[in-house]
Amino acid sequence: MDEKYMRRALELAKKGAGFTNPNPLVGAVIVKEGRIIGEGYHQIYGSHHAEVNAFRNAIEDVKGATMYVTLEPCSHFGKTPPCANAIVEKGIKKVVVAMEDPNPEVSGRGIKILRDNGIEVITGVLEEESRKLNEIFIKYITTKLPFCILKTAMTLDGKIATRTGDSKWITNEESREYVHNLRQRVAAIMVGVGTIIKDDPMLTTRLEKGNNSDPIRIIVDTRGRTPLDSKVLNIKSNARTIIATTELAEKERLKEYEKKGAEIIITPLKDNKVDLKFLMQELGKRKIDSVLLEGGSELNYSAIEERIVDKVNIFIAPKFIGGNEAKTPIGGIGIPLMKDALLLKNLGLHRFGDDIMIEGYLGQEG
Amino acid sequence: MDEKYMRRALELAKKGAGFTNPNPLVGAVIVKEGRIIGEGYHQIYGSHHAEVNAFRNAIEDVKGATMYVTLEPCSHFGKTPPCANAIVEKGIKKVVVAMEDPNPEVSGRGIKILRDNGIEVITGVLEEESRKLNEIFIKYITTKLPFCILKTAMTLDGKIATRTGDSKWITNEESREYVHNLRQRVAAIMVGVGTIIKDDPMLTTRLEKGNNSDPIRIIVDTRGRTPLDSKVLNIKSNARTIIATTELAEKERLKEYEKKGAEIIITPLKDNKVDLKFLMQELGKRKIDSVLLEGGSELNYSAIEERIVDKVNIFIAPKFIGGNEAKTPIGGIGIPLMKDALLLKNLGLHRFGDDIMIEGYLGQEG
Repeated sequence: MDEKYMRRALELAKKGAGFTNPNPLVGAVIVKEGRIIGEGYHQIYGSHHAEVNAFRNAIEDVKGATMYVTLEPCSHFGKTPPCANAIVEKGIKKVVVAMEDPNPEVSGRGIKILRDNGIEVITGVLEEESRKLNEIFIKYITTKLPFCILKTAMTLDGKIATRTGDSKWITNEESREYVHNLRQRVAAIMVGVGTIIKDDPMLTTRLEKGNNSDPIRIIVDTRGRTPLDSKVLNIKSNARTIIATTELAEKERLKEYEKKGAEIIITPLKDNKVDLKFLMQELGKRKIDSVLLEGGSELNYSAIEERIVDKVNIFIAPKFIGGNEAKTPIGGIGIPLMKDALLLKNLGLHRFGDDIMIEGYLGQEG
Repeated sequence: MDEKYMRRALELAKKGAGFTNPNPLVGAVIVKEGRIIGEGYHQIYGSHHAEVNAFRNAIEDVKGATMYVTLEPCSHFGKTPPCANAIVEKGIKKVVVAMEDPNPEVSGRGIKILRDNGIEVITGVLEEESRKLNEIFIKYITTKLPFCILKTAMTLDGKIATRTGDSKWITNEESREYVHNLRQRVAAIMVGVGTIIKDDPMLTTRLEKGNNSDPIRIIVDTRGRTPLDSKVLNIKSNARTIIATTELAEKERLKEYEKKGAEIIITPLKDNKVDLKFLMQELGKRKIDSVLLEGGSELNYSAIEERIVDKVNIFIAPKFIGGNEAKTPIGGIGIPLMKDALLLKNLGLHRFGDDIMIEGYLGQEG
């Protein structure tokens, strides 16, 4: 029974996806005598928490009711007053929590307030689902680094473009729509300058529905080769563009980018390229909690090598193009021995029409 | 009800896999008053057909019973007398057939004999399943060309080896065991000479159970570069080795291969390489009904380009190795535009532990 209501709370939480960053996704359900009498979720960053929305939506007196909430109620005065105190004041009798707050600075405090006030608290109901739902938040709150998702699309013979560089389109419309949804759920998209030069993408979400808020665009551009007339520097968008570069770029060039409205992050050199670990720290400082890496072959390899990637989404289209010179999803120098390959964990398999998407996680060790 | 018994007949048919080539896989079930009273399948090439085995195994009088058989009963005197006549003689009342004989020379004749003798015949029950089960037989009997399965194993970033050529192992034990089973089910395995030089494989089935009959080994070797001390030319095996070569190989060298027991097929030159279409015709003449192509990158591309491949089995291991120089499953010059990619049809998805295997079919047009 607890799982049933928690599953509903998780469903509600998901509705906030793409709107709450860098806050978590949270859903809450109030149950009295076997009836749901209130539901709410965290809808948008800076607005009410899920618990408060559930109270506001309640159709009966919540006194004596049970609350199901996907994340430990907060105990601190942030943009809103603490939810734990509100729960106490409203006379809730029992609180069922999926997972404790992952923020080590406040974890357990909300639950303590509830218990100190005589409320029964049960934790760990559908915890795994809740952790997955908030994988971005958990990574960010515990490390101050963005959660990085490497997304790529390849043919079934491992190519991300033909030998001539043609990549339109590898995947089908369903897959591409999923990617546009994914773009809306992250704070930023990151590409290499090679992709800008070759494809001149807009890197917007192109979704008709949704929050119409494009993700921040990050271009990894060691030498300042981004063309001044590229779309990312010229299209109208509500999101900013960041150019991550190094001392190898000319200062005058960087000023031109700034005139176009771009923000510049200069990183130290790492193997004569942008230091991606440093960049992630800088992005974290700017409250960017998540990055969708849609790099070319070289940037992807650097990202894998630098261990900045948390999760991968590999789309595979059931087609062959062949070609020794065609690019693969991950290039670079490569790992010399198969036994040292980087292993993906917690695999998931999704179908989009005839396309297949393999989801997995990379460890951050090493 | 018909489907239930036919499904049982299909299960029986599968037991012959790897033993009946170039005959089809056939199963038969005899049902009387709702009870199965006899079962049989074609067990091994040259021996009794499924129908006869079902009669031999019957535990009651079959007169007035219904027979379920996955393939139209034969009408010709081959290695055994015609099954259609046996069915008539035994007094079977009704015959349910999954599919008609795909051999255009005899298709429909068996059913005609049955109907001419007053037996009710129903066709097309689980036809699709039966056609898939006998895809090798259908291709071979209708074209006299072997059914060719391209099998490859790659990392999730599209590599069949690291940049240093290391490929041990990409896939897990479950996947590799499946491949050994697959090898037992085909008449021949085909590799390029590059694989022989690099890996010196035995190309045997390495299965403890099974028929202990290794597939025929075919080496595509345009210039006669197969080392005389390679395992395929020296190991003990009950199966022969064929070297497919061209006028570019020295005649003396080919004589050495023959001394080692290998058979030589000389094909015309096609782009300065073995003509794979010609080779397939030659293999068909030798009653080789199926070829498992485990080529390297180059041979795979030639096979795709020459349209000799019917089916593919692509194993994908959830790991990354990177490397611009690492080989991919299909190399060669490659197709220049994505819109001209070769599409796979009738996709199937299989899991072997964490490995994924994508099965698909390539059209033979073009």
